[in-house]
Amino acid sequence: MTQSRPDPNVSSVFNAAPARRADPVLLTPGPLTTSAATKSAMLRDWGSLDDAFNALIASVCADLVGIAHGEASHVCIPLQGSGTFSVEAALGTLVPRAGKVLVPDNGAYCQRILGYLGREAVALPFGDDRPVDPAAVERALQADPAITHVALVHCETSASILNPLPEVAMAVARQGRRLIVDAMSAFGMLPIDLRAMPIETVIAASGKCLEGVPGMGFVIATRASLEAATGNSHSLALDLHDQWIYLQKTGQWRFTPPTHVLAALHASLAQYRAEGGLEAHGALLRQLPPARRGHALTRLPALPGRRGAGAGHRHLPHARRSGLSVQALLRTDARARLHPLSGETHAPGDLPHRLHRLHRRHRWRGDRGGARSRRRHAQGKRHPDGAGASLSRPIRYFLQDL
Amino acid sequence: MTQSRPDPNVSSVFNAAPARRADPVLLTPGPLTTSAATKSAMLRDWGSLDDAFNALIASVCADLVGIAHGEASHVCIPLQGSGTFSVEAALGTLVPRAGKVLVPDNGAYCQRILGYLGREAVALPFGDDRPVDPAAVERALQADPAITHVALVHCETSASILNPLPEVAMAVARQGRRLIVDAMSAFGMLPIDLRAMPIETVIAASGKCLEGVPGMGFVIATRASLEAATGNSHSLALDLHDQWIYLQKTGQWRFTPPTHVLAALHASLAQYRAEGGLEAHGALLRQLPPARRGHALTRLPALPGRRGAGAGHRHLPHARRSGLSVQALLRTDARARLHPLSGETHAPGDLPHRLHRLHRRHRWRGDRGGARSRRRHAQGKRHPDGAGASLSRPIRYFLQDL
Repeated sequence: MTQSRPDPNVSSVFNAAPARRADPVLLTPGPLTTSAATKSAMLRDWGSLDDAFNALIASVCADLVGIAHGEASHVCIPLQGSGTFSVEAALGTLVPRAGKVLVPDNGAYCQRILGYLGREAVALPFGDDRPVDPAAVERALQADPAITHVALVHCETSASILNPLPEVAMAVARQGRRLIVDAMSAFGMLPIDLRAMPIETVIAASGKCLEGVPGMGFVIATRASLEAATGNSHSLALDLHDQWIYLQKTGQWRFTPPTHVLAALHASLAQYRAEGGLEAHGALLRQLPPARRGHALTRLPALPGRRGAGAGHRHLPHARRSGLSVQALLRTDARARLHPLSGETHAPGDLPHRLHRLHRRHRWRGDRGGARSRRRHAQGKRHPDGAGASLSRPIRYFLQDL
Repeated sequence: MTQSRPDPNVSSVFNAAPARRADPVLLTPGPLTTSAATKSAMLRDWGSLDDAFNALIASVCADLVGIAHGEASHVCIPLQGSGTFSVEAALGTLVPRAGKVLVPDNGAYCQRILGYLGREAVALPFGDDRPVDPAAVERALQADPAITHVALVHCETSASILNPLPEVAMAVARQGRRLIVDAMSAFGMLPIDLRAMPIETVIAASGKCLEGVPGMGFVIATRASLEAATGNSHSLALDLHDQWIYLQKTGQWRFTPPTHVLAALHASLAQYRAEGGLEAHGALLRQLPPARRGHALTRLPALPGRRGAGAGHRHLPHARRSGLSVQALLRTDARARLHPLSGETHAPGDLPHRLHRLHRRHRWRGDRGGARSRRRHAQGKRHPDGAGASLSRPIRYFLQDL
C-alpha cells in the first residue's frame, strides 16, 4: 500500500480512545484505554448465580485456555482481584507447603510473596539489565534437588525485560521440576503454546494485553497440579483448588464475582478473536528485535538512559510510563498493515503521524500531573526532562527506542 | 397522600431496572440491579496512578467512613476482590498471630477463614434460627481471658438473621476485647455509628446495599488497630496494613485497582447521598419489626416454611432467592412516601401494584432457570412450588413475610 494514501483504518486507534476528549490515553502495561464495545458490555447487570452468567464464565475460560493452546491439558480458573492476587493464589495453592521455589530474579516479587506464604524460596539474580539465562537456571536446579518449582516472570515489567520462556521451560522440564509463569504483561501478545512448552501454570489478568478492564485475574493450570493441591492454600479467598472444585460443580465462582469486569473481558475477547487473535496482535511485536519486545510491552515511552534501571518504571510519573498504548499501536498496525517504525520518512496516515495527531487531540497526561512532577523534580527525584512535558517528547523516545 | 392518586415516583423503581427489557431484576443480597447512572460511570477509563483517580479513591473512602460516622477515629481501606477477600484481609491483618477470636455463630464462616489463617478461633453457636445473645457473648468472654477479638456478622445472610450489633458491641467493650463486624449485607441500610458504638472494624463491599457493582470491598478500621498490625498478615495481596501505608503515602492502592468498579461506586455513593443517605434508605426497614429486618435484607422473597432453615438460601434457584430488590423497594418507598405493606387493599400506584407491574414488564428469572428448577424438583430437592413460577407467588410470599 502507498503510505500517502488516506488510510481507511486511521480512525481505528481513536475508536479505542477515551470517551471524553479530555481523557488521557492509557497505555501499556495497563490498565489501558479500552474499546467502546468493551466498556458498553458493562451497561448490563448480571445475576452471579444465573445460568446466563455461568455461560459467560465458561466462554471466557475456554477463550483464555485456547489462547495458550491448553485445551487438552489445562483448565482456567478465574479469580477476583488484580493479577497479583492470582499470582499469590497460584503459588500458595500449587506449591506444597514443603515445596521449594527457584525464582530467577530480574525484578520479580515472587520471592516476596513466597516469604508471606512460608514457602522456601531461593533467588537466582540476573540484575535488572539482562534476561534470565536458561543454562544458569538448569545449573541451579542440578545443584539443588530440593527445588520443586521454578517461578518465572515472562516479561518483567519493572525492568522491561522479556525472559526466554521456551528455553527456560525446556531446562526446567529436563530437570523434572514444575514451572509457574507470571505472564501478566505479555499474555495474549506473545505466544505461549502449552502443547509444545512444558509449563504447568500460566497466570495473567483481565486488564493488560487482553484489553479488558481491571478487576480479575486467571490461572491456567494442569488438572493434575490442581488435583494434587488440596489443602495447600494459606488463604480461603485465594484457594485456587477450592475455586476450581466449586467451578466444576456449579459453573460459578465461590465468592461474588466481579460480574461487570467479566462481561467486559468477554466482550474484549470477542474483539480479540475477530481481529485475528494472537497472530494479529503480536504481528508488530514479532518484527522488533527480541531484546526490544519486553520494552515495547512495558515501557512506552521509555526514558533514555533509564532502560534497565530497574524498578524505576512504577515510580515514574504517568506522563513518563505512558505513551500510546502498544496495544493500540499494534492493533492499528495490524489493521492498516503499515510497516512498523523504521526511520524512513513518514507520510500522513502512517504511524508517527497518527501519534502526533493523537497528541493534538487528547490532553496529555503529563499536563495533569504537573504540580507533582515539578515537586519531584525540585526534590531532585526522577525524570530530568522537567514537568508537564508534551507528548512529542515521549513519542520521540518511543520512536527512538523502537 | 391518597393511594389512588397517580404516583409521580412510580417510575423510580424502573429507573433502577435493567437496561434491557428481557433482563431480570436483581435483588438483595446482591449483586443488585444498579442504576443507569452507576453503570454509565464505567464508560470511562481511568489511569490507576493518575491524580484524578487518586481523588476518586479519597472521595469514596471519605464517603464510606462518613456513613459510619467514623471520621474522628477510623480510616477506610479499599481492597480488590469480593467482600470475603476484605473479611479475610481484616481478620488476617488485625488479629495478631497469637490472638484468639470468638465467633458468635449463626451461619457465619469466620471460623473457617480463621482456620486457614492459623488463628485460634472458638465458636459460640446460636443455631440458625435465633440472633446472637449479647449476654452469652459476655459470659463467654468472661470465661476465657485468652480471647482477644470477637468477629460478628451484622446480618447473617445464610440464616437471614439480624444480630443485635449495638448490644454485642457494648458487651465486648465491657470485657475489654476488640470487635470486628462483617456488615456486608447491611452497610448503608442499617445504622452503624462509630461515635457511639465501640467497634474496631467494619467490613463491607461495593455491590450490596450501596448499589455499586461487585469487585471491591472495604475495611473501616481504627488507626490504632492498623498501626499495631505490622507483619500480622498471612498474605501479600490481603495485607491491609501494607495497603493502608501505601495508600497514605501515594493515595493509591498497592496493586492494580478495579478502576471501573471504583468509579461505579463513586457514582452510586453520589446517588445515595442525593437521595437522603442512610436515613432515607433505611426508612422502610425501620418500620419493620426488628425480627423481620434481617429477612428483608437477605431473603426476598422468602419461601414459607424455610425461614430459619439455615444455609438453604444460597442453594435456592435464583427465582426463589430473588424478589424485587429490597433496595428498590426501600428507595421507591422513600421517594413515594408510601406506607409499607400492611395487608390493606392496594390501590394502583402503591407497592404491591408496582410489583405486579414490574412482573408484567420484565421477564422473571424463574422462567429462565426452568429446566434446572424442574430437574431439582423431580429429584425432590428444594422449592416444592414447581418450576418457572411467576413473580406473583414470590411476591405473595414476600408480602406475607413482611
